[in-house]
Amino acid sequence: MSQSPKQQSTGPSSAGRQPAGQSPAGRSVPTSADVARLAGVSRATVSYVLNNTAAVRISEPTRRRVREAAEELGYVPHAAARSLRAGHSRMVLMPTAHVPIGPLYSRFFNELQWALRRLDYTVVQYGSVGLDGDAAARAWAELRPVAVVSLGPVEVTPSGVDLLKRAGARAVITVGPQRVEGTHSVVMDLTRVGRDAGEHLVARGCRAIGVVMPEEPGLEMFSVPRLEGVRAAAAEAGATVVPLPLAYEEEPAAALAGRWRELGLDGVFAYNDEYAMLLMRALQDAGIAVPDDTAVVGSDDLLLGRLLRPRLSTVHIDMIGGRALAELVDRAVREPGTRPERHELLDSRMVVRESS
Amino acid sequence: MSQSPKQQSTGPSSAGRQPAGQSPAGRSVPTSADVARLAGVSRATVSYVLNNTAAVRISEPTRRRVREAAEELGYVPHAAARSLRAGHSRMVLMPTAHVPIGPLYSRFFNELQWALRRLDYTVVQYGSVGLDGDAAARAWAELRPVAVVSLGPVEVTPSGVDLLKRAGARAVITVGPQRVEGTHSVVMDLTRVGRDAGEHLVARGCRAIGVVMPEEPGLEMFSVPRLEGVRAAAAEAGATVVPLPLAYEEEPAAALAGRWRELGLDGVFAYNDEYAMLLMRALQDAGIAVPDDTAVVGSDDLLLGRLLRPRLSTVHIDMIGGRALAELVDRAVREPGTRPERHELLDSRMVVRESS
Repeated sequence: MSQSPKQQSTGPSSAGRQPAGQSPAGRSVPTSADVARLAGVSRATVSYVLNNTAAVRISEPTRRRVREAAEELGYVPHAAARSLRAGHSRMVLMPTAHVPIGPLYSRFFNELQWALRRLDYTVVQYGSVGLDGDAAARAWAELRPVAVVSLGPVEVTPSGVDLLKRAGARAVITVGPQRVEGTHSVVMDLTRVGRDAGEHLVARGCRAIGVVMPEEPGLEMFSVPRLEGVRAAAAEAGATVVPLPLAYEEEPAAALAGRWRELGLDGVFAYNDEYAMLLMRALQDAGIAVPDDTAVVGSDDLLLGRLLRPRLSTVHIDMIGGRALAELVDRAVREPGTRPERHELLDSRMVVRESS
Repeated sequence: MSQSPKQQSTGPSSAGRQPAGQSPAGRSVPTSADVARLAGVSRATVSYVLNNTAAVRISEPTRRRVREAAEELGYVPHAAARSLRAGHSRMVLMPTAHVPIGPLYSRFFNELQWALRRLDYTVVQYGSVGLDGDAAARAWAELRPVAVVSLGPVEVTPSGVDLLKRAGARAVITVGPQRVEGTHSVVMDLTRVGRDAGEHLVARGCRAIGVVMPEEPGLEMFSVPRLEGVRAAAAEAGATVVPLPLAYEEEPAAALAGRWRELGLDGVFAYNDEYAMLLMRALQDAGIAVPDDTAVVGSDDLLLGRLLRPRLSTVHIDMIGGRALAELVDRAVREPGTRPERHELLDSRMVVRESS
């Protein structure tokens, strides 16, 4: 145990002078040497036991003695010290987005985290509000993650990737609609959501299809591929497509509904169920009949769509393969030279109800 | 620069043997010694400049030389190495919840993160799915955070707090409806949301008030205080209160609406706007007139409430004081002995529309 004098912290000025190894309560922070002494084994043995190193044969009674000593002292291995010795950490860092994450995404995210933890990684999220590409990468690099997995609208720049790799990151994995240079890019095909909606509207006879484009920043990466998907489906049938920029507020929705007749649209893909609810209410208030004058389709298959009258048609989306992505991360860490693979992370199907 | 031979990683077996200080691409990871050599200064000077140590006078040309050398080499300070030297980290760890976080909460969370970053802390979130109290605390402790701030339904146990403090955490701060032993507990008064709704319903003449209690796990800590708030408001007026357990699905809502007349309720506080939408649809489908037979009040003031017919009355909630909480965290880190303070983190007001 460290023999530095016990010192009670008494104010802000003392905090900076508090000796390393002292906990705030004045008790010294237990070290693996303390555990070794109490258990009567070497520090290496403590490390082998507590880090579950399978390669080293240690008897069960010894393992138990080490675990009991650690428990008694309240000793927890120090991830940073271990990573400094090993030259790399087991930390997977995930930048988190500015926009709130829906239930769809959070299930996938939980599965991914769970699978990474089973592979013995520590997963931390890093809120990147107010940090741009390179500054964000620098902040992440200070934590020396072994991998960075970016799933959201946080921009990862090629120079940021380079910086992370110089700081020891073995893999930078991006999941999104586009490839990002220098990373393992798992491309998620969001055009299929728009294609599902577009094919349904075309099959139903629509020839002039509006596509709601949210004006909220950060959503372009999700809305543009959907628009492209609708366009592809419409082109085959000779139907026209009109992008409809819309903010998620009542007034702009009412304004859009007010000029609906001059737009001459007979169908609309409303980005998601929440925008569909907003637009459908505005259309109904403006005397446009849904689905007779205009068919409306949302996406995400939220419960609220079933509570609307008419019941909302929607594209059901599943994020799949959290475990497969975790395995890709592990492979990319162990074999930094491997080429990115294609993964299906999205499954979708049209759910036809009453609004189309 | 490290003179270890450059070694290209070729497969999984090589990963474990890769020498410390080698990046995966075979370039060595730049160290502060490399920066010092290139800038022609001491390692201490590099550290002072890059960690913005104000106490040490270093000329602006020298600072610039150090920054340019760091930039050229792609050097980023190593947070863990720095914290090992200092004996404590600047990491504030925030356990994240299982349940998706709404827009209300995420604005507050962003403000808190931003303010902590301005105070020079590194904020990381730790997904705690599948970890219980003590195991979660052990996982957090491995990262040696200087503070843990728990804002959600992740259970923090007294033994977990003890473990974290032994691992050097100077402060464990919990924000929620209850105090947690051994922590700086910032108590958030959720009863006032229920009291606002209850007072409104009572003033409107309701004498038998239902309170929706979501059956989804993890929401009790939010729903029970709301129920208590309605009860307090009802007691003063001699009104009765009936808890109504409800899962967020159409069928149970229809079943509840089916026995509505025998319940004899003339008002209901529906937990939040989404449950209110679910219940109002079921009541309308069952021929119960809103608000004439039963008044309905939600909470959170989401846009969807304004899109319903009748428009939904609701309790508007603001999470406030992210910056104040950040300052509390900083004070608790600098003065671990300080007593927890009371902070107002919640502001609420009744918004009366057509449903009540």
